[in-house]
Amino acid sequence: VTGEFATIRRLVDLLPPPRPGAVSPGEVWIGDDAAALRTPQAPWLLLAADAVVAGVHADLALTTLEDLGWKAIAVNLSDIAAMGGTPRYALVTVAGDPAFDLDALYRGIAAAVDAFGCPVVGGDLSNGPGLVVGVSVTGTTDTRPVRRSGAAPADGIWVTGPLGASAAGLRVLRAGPPAEGTDALVAAHARPVPRLREGLAAAAAGATAMIDVSDGLAADLGHIADASGLGYELHALPVADGATVEEALGGGEDYELVFCAPDTGAVEVAFDGLAAPIRIGRCVPDRSRRLWDSQPIDSGGWQHRW
Amino acid sequence: VTGEFATIRRLVDLLPPPRPGAVSPGEVWIGDDAAALRTPQAPWLLLAADAVVAGVHADLALTTLEDLGWKAIAVNLSDIAAMGGTPRYALVTVAGDPAFDLDALYRGIAAAVDAFGCPVVGGDLSNGPGLVVGVSVTGTTDTRPVRRSGAAPADGIWVTGPLGASAAGLRVLRAGPPAEGTDALVAAHARPVPRLREGLAAAAAGATAMIDVSDGLAADLGHIADASGLGYELHALPVADGATVEEALGGGEDYELVFCAPDTGAVEVAFDGLAAPIRIGRCVPDRSRRLWDSQPIDSGGWQHRW
Repeated sequence: VTGEFATIRRLVDLLPPPRPGAVSPGEVWIGDDAAALRTPQAPWLLLAADAVVAGVHADLALTTLEDLGWKAIAVNLSDIAAMGGTPRYALVTVAGDPAFDLDALYRGIAAAVDAFGCPVVGGDLSNGPGLVVGVSVTGTTDTRPVRRSGAAPADGIWVTGPLGASAAGLRVLRAGPPAEGTDALVAAHARPVPRLREGLAAAAAGATAMIDVSDGLAADLGHIADASGLGYELHALPVADGATVEEALGGGEDYELVFCAPDTGAVEVAFDGLAAPIRIGRCVPDRSRRLWDSQPIDSGGWQHRW
Repeated sequence: VTGEFATIRRLVDLLPPPRPGAVSPGEVWIGDDAAALRTPQAPWLLLAADAVVAGVHADLALTTLEDLGWKAIAVNLSDIAAMGGTPRYALVTVAGDPAFDLDALYRGIAAAVDAFGCPVVGGDLSNGPGLVVGVSVTGTTDTRPVRRSGAAPADGIWVTGPLGASAAGLRVLRAGPPAEGTDALVAAHARPVPRLREGLAAAAAGATAMIDVSDGLAADLGHIADASGLGYELHALPVADGATVEEALGGGEDYELVFCAPDTGAVEVAFDGLAAPIRIGRCVPDRSRRLWDSQPIDSGGWQHRW
């Protein structure tokens, strides 16, 4: 059986069924013009959308379509995490060449939405060149969303884990068959994990600014510094096992969270039960001052070509 | 100035500024990990996403990038209209080759979001093959969303306007420089208008099922019939001036709304002040019975190739 409508039915069947009680009476998930959902009982609605493109965001010679599907979901959930929110619903639009194995793509999407509890409630399938997987996620938060712009001078700066594993994993994959002991690096690249609990903990700790490390620590901390009108001094750079300093500083796609908060001890309390975040430095009033180990660092980061 | 970040800033400047009072205190629109919005005070949230692909959904030899941008917004708002909802927020993700004139695309997006009052609050820009414009829209409704599945036997069937103009407009464009008197057909193809007020009126009239005509009347009414477990008999087919019967029945992309409702006179009352919808037939219990002027019609419609 082929054709758009039949293919959509087959792909929907690959998604995990709604969890018991997840569909409120009268709600419409997949299969109508729009998904219709009971408005979540939270004061704030979070909306994020990112597209993942085969050959741009993932090299299909090195990773799989399952991984691409996982990544498309994960990077969007990471944006919700970086606001201190909880993801609720995902929409998936796929535009691509029929030669791509959509079932594999959807298996990865299904694994991610199942792992992180964010069901796909709608979307679209159309032809197009290459393969572009667009995801938009609706999230909520009960407390003030954590923006990039709220950091204050003398706030501490934390990161939720060591950096550079994703870039190191890509380096390993490019070098040929992965050597023994590199599984964690490859997994960090192929199956990034959004730091959802960590984002909630940072918000609970009174984080004044937060971002996920997608373009690299230097670039993403640069976004916080630009938006908050501050500089920063880093005294520490936690490098993932097997990664280089350059990969930790500029590699990106780690999806750890970087956040600023007053040095009150609230961070340690809020992260009780989670891996302790690593304090890497502090904010300073002079926005032109951006130092690691007393050396200036470049906030350029990786950008798409336009 | 080039680069992704600079290009995003330039494109955001092309969008209309928020209307006075539109941004609630503490809200974040464009420029953070996610948009953060006060949860709208409505019991139902509507979520829709559709991608528009250059060369697939629009032939750039015949229409412009401005038109593609307009269309990407309009088709998504049409999905909200078809649920009886009001659009609130749009996210736009563009994946494309840097050779495309993004400014032109965004001028069309800006014109549409301004015309229909649905601001762009976030999105993403990345490289990719061709040009894929993904839009997702969040809408609300205070009343029960109008699904495809609620039609009852003997309900009347209405369409909000004549059909076939978009397909006829495409035919005109393909034939060479448009002849005099074809402006309305060309505009119907290049700048479709979501029937937002009509969708609200149909919902207020007690519409039991509704869909927008994107794939063609036969296909889209087929979706209602399939979802509602019914057949239908059409006695009328309103053909737009300059269009053919085939274009009216199978052309698609008209974005008129087709809806079913009891024959109580409520439809006429609810559409007071709007163009009167046209009653084209009625639902019948036998789901295999799908007739126009006593002849069977094919619900196949246009599908993407998979």
